[in-house]
Amino acid sequence: MNVNPSVTPAGRPGTLPSPSRPPASANPGAPTATCRIALVGFGAVGDAVARSLCERPRAGLRLTHIVSNDGAGRRAAWMPATVTRVDTAVEVLMADVDVVVDLLEDPRESADIIRAALEAGKSVVTAGRQTMAHDGPELLALARARGCRLRFEAAVGGPVPMVAGLRDGLAGDRLQALVGILNGACNYMLSRMEWTGGVFADALAEAQRLGLAGAEPADDVEGHDAAAKLSVLSGIAFGRQIVVDEIPRQTIAAIEPIDFSYAARLDCTIRPIAYAGRRPGGLAAWVSPALVPRASMLSHLHGSQSILVAQGDAMMHSGFFGVGAGSRAAAVAIVSDLLALAGSAPVGCGWLPVPTRTHLSVPDIEVRRYLRFVVRDRPGIIAELAKSFAAERVSVEAVLQEPPFRRSELPFVVTLDPCRQSALDRALETIAACDFHVKPPLSLPVLDQSVA
Amino acid sequence: MNVNPSVTPAGRPGTLPSPSRPPASANPGAPTATCRIALVGFGAVGDAVARSLCERPRAGLRLTHIVSNDGAGRRAAWMPATVTRVDTAVEVLMADVDVVVDLLEDPRESADIIRAALEAGKSVVTAGRQTMAHDGPELLALARARGCRLRFEAAVGGPVPMVAGLRDGLAGDRLQALVGILNGACNYMLSRMEWTGGVFADALAEAQRLGLAGAEPADDVEGHDAAAKLSVLSGIAFGRQIVVDEIPRQTIAAIEPIDFSYAARLDCTIRPIAYAGRRPGGLAAWVSPALVPRASMLSHLHGSQSILVAQGDAMMHSGFFGVGAGSRAAAVAIVSDLLALAGSAPVGCGWLPVPTRTHLSVPDIEVRRYLRFVVRDRPGIIAELAKSFAAERVSVEAVLQEPPFRRSELPFVVTLDPCRQSALDRALETIAACDFHVKPPLSLPVLDQSVA
Repeated sequence: MNVNPSVTPAGRPGTLPSPSRPPASANPGAPTATCRIALVGFGAVGDAVARSLCERPRAGLRLTHIVSNDGAGRRAAWMPATVTRVDTAVEVLMADVDVVVDLLEDPRESADIIRAALEAGKSVVTAGRQTMAHDGPELLALARARGCRLRFEAAVGGPVPMVAGLRDGLAGDRLQALVGILNGACNYMLSRMEWTGGVFADALAEAQRLGLAGAEPADDVEGHDAAAKLSVLSGIAFGRQIVVDEIPRQTIAAIEPIDFSYAARLDCTIRPIAYAGRRPGGLAAWVSPALVPRASMLSHLHGSQSILVAQGDAMMHSGFFGVGAGSRAAAVAIVSDLLALAGSAPVGCGWLPVPTRTHLSVPDIEVRRYLRFVVRDRPGIIAELAKSFAAERVSVEAVLQEPPFRRSELPFVVTLDPCRQSALDRALETIAACDFHVKPPLSLPVLDQSVA
Repeated sequence: MNVNPSVTPAGRPGTLPSPSRPPASANPGAPTATCRIALVGFGAVGDAVARSLCERPRAGLRLTHIVSNDGAGRRAAWMPATVTRVDTAVEVLMADVDVVVDLLEDPRESADIIRAALEAGKSVVTAGRQTMAHDGPELLALARARGCRLRFEAAVGGPVPMVAGLRDGLAGDRLQALVGILNGACNYMLSRMEWTGGVFADALAEAQRLGLAGAEPADDVEGHDAAAKLSVLSGIAFGRQIVVDEIPRQTIAAIEPIDFSYAARLDCTIRPIAYAGRRPGGLAAWVSPALVPRASMLSHLHGSQSILVAQGDAMMHSGFFGVGAGSRAAAVAIVSDLLALAGSAPVGCGWLPVPTRTHLSVPDIEVRRYLRFVVRDRPGIIAELAKSFAAERVSVEAVLQEPPFRRSELPFVVTLDPCRQSALDRALETIAACDFHVKPPLSLPVLDQSVA
């Protein structure tokens, strides 16, 4: 074992960081202290965090432990001898450490170490997206009960300080809705399709070549990553964290080049959108590629950028956007959280309410819709569609058909006035039974002009 | 006098808020406390803050005092009897108050009350833009010395949490540059000129009609307001607050409709830009209308929106933007600051360094330039200009001339490769002595394509 020999009990819960030397005399009640940090999980992000802490030392922050269980015991030249490498997280929990940085990839392991650290009276900074999406409310409640803190900017925004923006900057408002592009890889793929006119498979391959998407891209492409981020953000914005598995999501893999042509005719483009908002009955949320009006800031986010726009009672909208390169950008979020922890201690009136877990109570969102059909053309198709929509009281806004296509595989678009999802689903069920489809119909929400 | 009868000494410096009742038992070290708030200055923003605090009570925040010296003693129906109105700020400083909210309009009075409150061990939230621009470093140092805190989101971002974003969200990076649109009224005027093709005077009149600009708009139009905000932001981003009076600024009143035509030919628009950045010799900064490439997010900010984009070592860029309506939006910034104060107490290692005051050490910024001349046309003008530029080794990039103009008042544009301001100034001095000018030449910076 390689544990720091001078193990002492952690500071009393509720004060952080616990003073590592006697308080300075100048400011009574404000001890000069150093926040002793342990990194658990030492991949690319861990390396970037450790480098940032060691190569650019900051008053109040000191890296003391790294948990790395690969026997090699990676110890880079830049790492000072004062950093202790240990084999297991348990050793860190027993050691003289103030903050545990959780960078474990497995959500179960991540939740376990966070829970154990909080129980031991240590505050935590985590990059665990799925951890916070699934266990955030309980972990935040545990932190509150133990007088510790749990920060998680890296779990959501990466290079964009979405958590800080909502929590520290807009807490004084009552937020009504969040809309954003929460997955930079998906935004890269869709904006690349827009630029090149190419198909989805090529955009995905290019994103993989650039390292934006992994070998198994389903987490990005199918919207699971964005849904997890949206769940966590809903807890901050509304005090109620939406159960992540209930957030409906739609793949971006169904988008074809022709959809960008039709979107352009509607003065829109297509972006991977995440939405959550208050409704009379509760909270609504979805993750889906959507048509975004050219007048919206969201349409101008190209490449691997991400953005979050909040709408509130007092301010019309306020947004955070950006782009950053991988592990170094994630390290910025983690070091920023560490600096915030080191600079203040929580007091009991704890202004950030611990979010409760909440179910989606309004699945039936009313929104404008873009429907793209690909059919074997014959007379009467529009009439059949119109009849099916009318039966469900769904109102057709427009029918668009670009001219130069084969009649054996004809794509055309129907836009619908805002209608209930349930009514639309019933209409599409009837329509799906028709014999003219070459591909399944694609249904996308159309964002409101009023959005940012 | 109307002072709260139960005056007790303020809490010891360094802990905030001081407990107003005995600590609850659950969390040792984390007393359940209420932050008692006094509003000094009771105009539209004070009214909005008071309404927000009284109509939507939040755990940990309680409005206890309002300083209002108009004899009428404005007391609205919604204001609970527990709020005490006093005549002078001095009474608040002696009262049992934890946080003073400074909303005074006069910068000298504002600085005086902040100083007095901090000396009395009370933390402060201020909306005083000029106060923070001129006295920020000293006031922040005083707060640090007294173990109190001084927050000032409303002094800068209004509806956009720029201070929270930089300080809480990006503190982990080393920031290299800030670029933004910091004055919503100016952005409204320039984007209105762009839409309507109208002249500046009409855009100003419309901004005044909408209440975006006041009867004496020089503070906005001449760039003083943006320079003050930029000064404060430089202190957060770089730890060095640029002396506000040294920031060069240029009026937007010189922009004419023809400039938008020429900007469009250069695939740009014109926006009121503020820039500050690190240079080998120190910090550079300027406030000026500038040409902004259409590819930049800044070009898509229409109307009275504002935006701040930060570029750092680790992340390529991260930005904050938004729009909000007047006093209610300012109240969001103030209540958010109050919530942050109520939720945590400072510890001695205070991670946010108190900014030092710094002079502009690099006035000689190299940047692409747009020069617009209006001349009585005659042969040889271009040759004379070219000779003057060549003498100062300033390189001409392009000469643009829209066709349909009178020869007696011909506007044309010269764009320059990046050149030193000092060399350009010398060339323009020679050129100004020529006899062909109908109006003084207009010189605007052209933002780099790489900016956000």
